[in-house]
Amino acid sequence: MNTELTLYGYWRSSAAYRVRIALNLKGLAYQQVPVHLVKDGGQQHSAEYQALNPQELLPLLEDKGNGGVRIAQSLAILEYLDEVFPAPALLPSDPTQRAQVRALALHIACDLHPLNNLRVLQYLSGELGVGENAKDLWYRHWLHKGLAAVETGLAVFNDRLSLGERPGYLEACLVPQLYNARRFNCDLDAYPRILAMAARCESLEAFKQAAPEVQPDAQ
Amino acid sequence: MNTELTLYGYWRSSAAYRVRIALNLKGLAYQQVPVHLVKDGGQQHSAEYQALNPQELLPLLEDKGNGGVRIAQSLAILEYLDEVFPAPALLPSDPTQRAQVRALALHIACDLHPLNNLRVLQYLSGELGVGENAKDLWYRHWLHKGLAAVETGLAVFNDRLSLGERPGYLEACLVPQLYNARRFNCDLDAYPRILAMAARCESLEAFKQAAPEVQPDAQ
Repeated sequence: MNTELTLYGYWRSSAAYRVRIALNLKGLAYQQVPVHLVKDGGQQHSAEYQALNPQELLPLLEDKGNGGVRIAQSLAILEYLDEVFPAPALLPSDPTQRAQVRALALHIACDLHPLNNLRVLQYLSGELGVGENAKDLWYRHWLHKGLAAVETGLAVFNDRLSLGERPGYLEACLVPQLYNARRFNCDLDAYPRILAMAARCESLEAFKQAAPEVQPDAQ
Repeated sequence: MNTELTLYGYWRSSAAYRVRIALNLKGLAYQQVPVHLVKDGGQQHSAEYQALNPQELLPLLEDKGNGGVRIAQSLAILEYLDEVFPAPALLPSDPTQRAQVRALALHIACDLHPLNNLRVLQYLSGELGVGENAKDLWYRHWLHKGLAAVETGLAVFNDRLSLGERPGYLEACLVPQLYNARRFNCDLDAYPRILAMAARCESLEAFKQAAPEVQPDAQ
């Protein structure tokens, strides 16, 4: 077993979930170090973790096979994995198709997920004193705006996966976002292309093994 | 003049500013189509623009030299430009260095900027009824959290630019974020590495020509 790769993550972190999918799709073994996002005021803010990742966010990948380099940001990790362990690829080879995949993945990773992640919801409840109902509307507002754009964007794939018969970079971002939406009981009927793409992935072993519920730190 | 590239942008959009810098660093000529983010309730929400970019965000790059393909998301555009017009490169060639650059750029593009962009500040004031002072604190909270992490992360560059003597992908994200912070009168003294890196860039023609104030739609 290749244990040169270590993933600092949390079972419910959408961004860590993306990386677990990517590692599994490439057949790369990895160790997991759980960083609990709630316990102890958030272990990602501990001095110990901050020394590893000043961003105080998950995930973080450590590659002992490459001098112990540590890489933050899920999409930077996906790009790194595709460059260092090229087969099987996560991204298509054609620059236009790569751009189409990245544009949808970045829409999820920049304009949807960060608005609805734990630290932002905590700031809304805490510093801004936003009530549960308004916080729920906030979550749904950014979720539906984001998913609607992704649903339209998926048309270019003609009901296929982003690598034709195989999932990759795009699906590694899409499936965790859908998991997150389901946790918040969001109605997803308006997104048939997203649901179909996710359903094809969720039956694959790489996705099953990456699911939050089967992680060692799942509660 | 190569007018095969068209950038849909807005002079004050940080994300469009990133792409202007990247295009200039590569010496690529481009046409600009201004999309006013405030006028007419936000022209990015018009049916006409939505048909081009369902994400209803800027920037958008159209490449007539490549069948008129349209690419959303500033970082997807930067990656596309580096793949289709490889010289001069925006990213280093080494995968580890590429990952370090991307991790910092993504921290700005995912975890800092989207929380402080116009549509979110509008939601805070509008739907949530957050007052000016609390909105200002929100802005500064995410700005300072993000910049502090970037400041620490820049240590790996040893007071050089991300490509040694040349700026690229990282600086194309950093300089617009700093412009944004200055617009909001944020104290930046705690970030000497960021200020030094930006100062080296701001004297270069590629950055001067990309500055918001000199764009055709600047007001």
